[in-house]
Amino acid sequence: MASRDRGPRSDRNGSTRRQFLLGGTVAGVGAVSAIGIDAALRGTPPTATASEPLNGDVTVPFHGAHQAGIDTAAQAHGLFLALDLLPDTDRDGLRRMMRILTDDAARMTQGQSALADSEPELAVAPARLTVTFGFGPRLVARAGGTAPPWLAPLPVFTIDRLQPEYSEGDLLIQIAADDPLTVAHAGRMVLKDTRSFATLRWTQQGFRRAHGTVKPGTTMRNLFGQVDGTSNPEPGTPDFDTVVWNADDGWVAGGTGIVLRRIAMDLDKWDRLDRPGRDQSVGRYQSNGAPLTGSDEFDEPDFDAKTPIGFPVIPEFSHLRRSRSDNARERIFRRAFNYDDAPTSGRLSNAGLIFVSFQADIDRQFTPIQRRLDELDLLNEWTTPIGSAVFAAPPGCSEGGYIGETLLS
Amino acid sequence: MASRDRGPRSDRNGSTRRQFLLGGTVAGVGAVSAIGIDAALRGTPPTATASEPLNGDVTVPFHGAHQAGIDTAAQAHGLFLALDLLPDTDRDGLRRMMRILTDDAARMTQGQSALADSEPELAVAPARLTVTFGFGPRLVARAGGTAPPWLAPLPVFTIDRLQPEYSEGDLLIQIAADDPLTVAHAGRMVLKDTRSFATLRWTQQGFRRAHGTVKPGTTMRNLFGQVDGTSNPEPGTPDFDTVVWNADDGWVAGGTGIVLRRIAMDLDKWDRLDRPGRDQSVGRYQSNGAPLTGSDEFDEPDFDAKTPIGFPVIPEFSHLRRSRSDNARERIFRRAFNYDDAPTSGRLSNAGLIFVSFQADIDRQFTPIQRRLDELDLLNEWTTPIGSAVFAAPPGCSEGGYIGETLLS
Ligand code: HEM
Ligand code: HEM
Repeated sequence: MASRDRGPRSDRNGSTRRQFLLGGTVAGVGAVSAIGIDAALRGTPPTATASEPLNGDVTVPFHGAHQAGIDTAAQAHGLFLALDLLPDTDRDGLRRMMRILTDDAARMTQGQSALADSEPELAVAPARLTVTFGFGPRLVARAGGTAPPWLAPLPVFTIDRLQPEYSEGDLLIQIAADDPLTVAHAGRMVLKDTRSFATLRWTQQGFRRAHGTVKPGTTMRNLFGQVDGTSNPEPGTPDFDTVVWNADDGWVAGGTGIVLRRIAMDLDKWDRLDRPGRDQSVGRYQSNGAPLTGSDEFDEPDFDAKTPIGFPVIPEFSHLRRSRSDNARERIFRRAFNYDDAPTSGRLSNAGLIFVSFQADIDRQFTPIQRRLDELDLLNEWTTPIGSAVFAAPPGCSEGGYIGETLLS
Repeated sequence: MASRDRGPRSDRNGSTRRQFLLGGTVAGVGAVSAIGIDAALRGTPPTATASEPLNGDVTVPFHGAHQAGIDTAAQAHGLFLALDLLPDTDRDGLRRMMRILTDDAARMTQGQSALADSEPELAVAPARLTVTFGFGPRLVARAGGTAPPWLAPLPVFTIDRLQPEYSEGDLLIQIAADDPLTVAHAGRMVLKDTRSFATLRWTQQGFRRAHGTVKPGTTMRNLFGQVDGTSNPEPGTPDFDTVVWNADDGWVAGGTGIVLRRIAMDLDKWDRLDRPGRDQSVGRYQSNGAPLTGSDEFDEPDFDAKTPIGFPVIPEFSHLRRSRSDNARERIFRRAFNYDDAPTSGRLSNAGLIFVSFQADIDRQFTPIQRRLDELDLLNEWTTPIGSAVFAAPPGCSEGGYIGETLLS
């Protein structure tokens, strides 16, 4: 898959650079002379002046060897839609659906409206919109295809308190952009176009930092206040490619395995934990994310370091120690979003993490980590998985093709 | 109230200008030389380079004659919390609560963490955070104060299908910023500090365009695709001051009346309406918000213009005609947010508008408009008010003071 020639515009491997250097929407970069005084008077933020490209105009290429929205620097807003196929959606129906959805995604991510969009005005500012598709086990069966061995519900973990309304699903659509209106509109547009083929099973909405809030490249923080995402393969590196892109499983080759877990975080209980307790539960400082044996976020943790009285500085029960494996194969790429929904009555919060990880093989890479965390991880005291789903993301497609063609055509 | 001397930092009348010109967080504006290539390679948005101030660092002054968050250019995210007082929260308790909440708000809006914040790291990027308080009728009664005549539930309208879980409340806290994590954290912080005084009645989350998505000053669009907010008093003008700031009602003077209505928008039904029907229902073009008698968004509508066959070009039943009054007093300042929550089962959307308007006198300004819209407004075909609440926002306070001191001290 990855070797198809897609030309400069459509190749997502390395294309971002060319895209940025050769023009397109971000060509008009010039000097920012001063803050618009009119804008300042109204309390309008200072960054957007005439000569500066708007983040709303920035596009992420849709076509390419891999789907976008995986190695794309995570956007501020993520919407996850899980659909169940209608009983009579057969292989032909699946092909029709994926052609339509691919067309929608290819257009909207480039700032064009989808066909028959009744609010095309809401499509003009893509703000790095990506639309990413994942297939659940039943979809593959319906297509008459062979599911990779790892495309099945995860084993039962003792920590799980799974709710069906946040679990499983036949088709996952991940919609992410830096603008919440763009996400809302794109989500509605694709949902409308699935109407004859599927019903909505669940939706989850998450967020990270808004564009312009902190320096680009800053690791996000979750709602516990932790720096979350430090130790993660770096998109664009061979390491990332090995961890993420599947090379073995027929129609999935060039794609990846998706694990999505909704993990409730008990902020009230977390509140009662003091700083040292917080830092120890992860093995990193909440203040800057440095390992307890270091001072900088990206310092290598020293798992052998001992306290004066002989205890490990990074505790055995810490999330850092438990989630890191000696087996180089057991690695995943995490791309999570925070959620903070309206609390149910009597509670102060309903918050957590939409944990999303991408890995070439879920069984070999994700499951051993989750199993270790299930056995022991102090963080479990404050976190509860309440939803779980796995999907296989097919590879990307070139212009004229469609996502899922490796399975459906 | 409005005449207190608050000095340059604390005076919110005109202070925004000084704030922007004389420095503070936005001093380091320089030339933006080029797009960081590393950032570009990772698909990171191009605008934030070293020499440019981050929107996350921009602060809105807290102290001043009026509360912030009303004449502040609307932020991307709005969180509305309505609280009910505990039975034993008396006047003293109210004073204690408002002192604590004022302190929280004063700190967090300036990018400092609140006292006893267990996640101070989440407070460092205010991103134009404002925290605005409104008092409901029962809070005023509990304080032994006199409610202005307009501080009472609105009359019953035939279009209303109000749900108690989105209606009324003793204390409103409006939290708004350009960053969703900042909003989530500030919301949690103030909620924690109300725990001994009140319980959470409802929360509503809304959004507008993210910072950097479209040019500053662009009127927002709602989820029908309409340009929403064109005809609105302009903050900083005498007109705005007359419409918004209360001058008559004792402790409210310098404050304003708040109407918050949750209005469901039936996107599926709206979808079945064609373009001319859409344009006519409002009296403005969906494409650019121009009145049907003009071509530019800000053209004055000509209500006398007739079609060749003698019908008014801007229909009698249109929202524009029905919401505009001949009586100059019947005007309001609208500052709405879109909402797009997870649909309940079997539905494709659960979306609408958190309609928020500010006016000096709700009875004289808001109610006549809502009454006219209740009688006739084609838009009612697609919209249903499902929540309604009124509050009085007390004036602002100076350093050392607290919001509500005009009622409580
Ligand atoms: C709400 C639940 C969770 C929270 C709050 C959380 C938080 C964290 C934090 C703060 C770190 C350290 C910084 C970093 O490298 O990102 C971390 C690392 C990590 N987490 Fe989690 N995590 C959660 C769930 C999970 C789950 C379900 C898995 C996989 C089964 C997982 C796998 C990892 C891995 C692999 C690392 C990197 C370890 C290393 O340094 O090699 N986490 N997590
Ligand atoms: C979901 C419900 C609503 C929608 C979708 C909506 C939409 C609109 C739109 C598109 C406009 C024209 C552009 C503009 O000037 O902003 C407008 C104007 C206006 N609306 Fe609404 N509106 C809604 C509810 C209300 C309510 C409840 C009120 C007050 C009771 C109201 C009062 C007004 C006023 C005063 C104007 C300006 C009229 C003028 O030009 O003088 N609207 N609205």
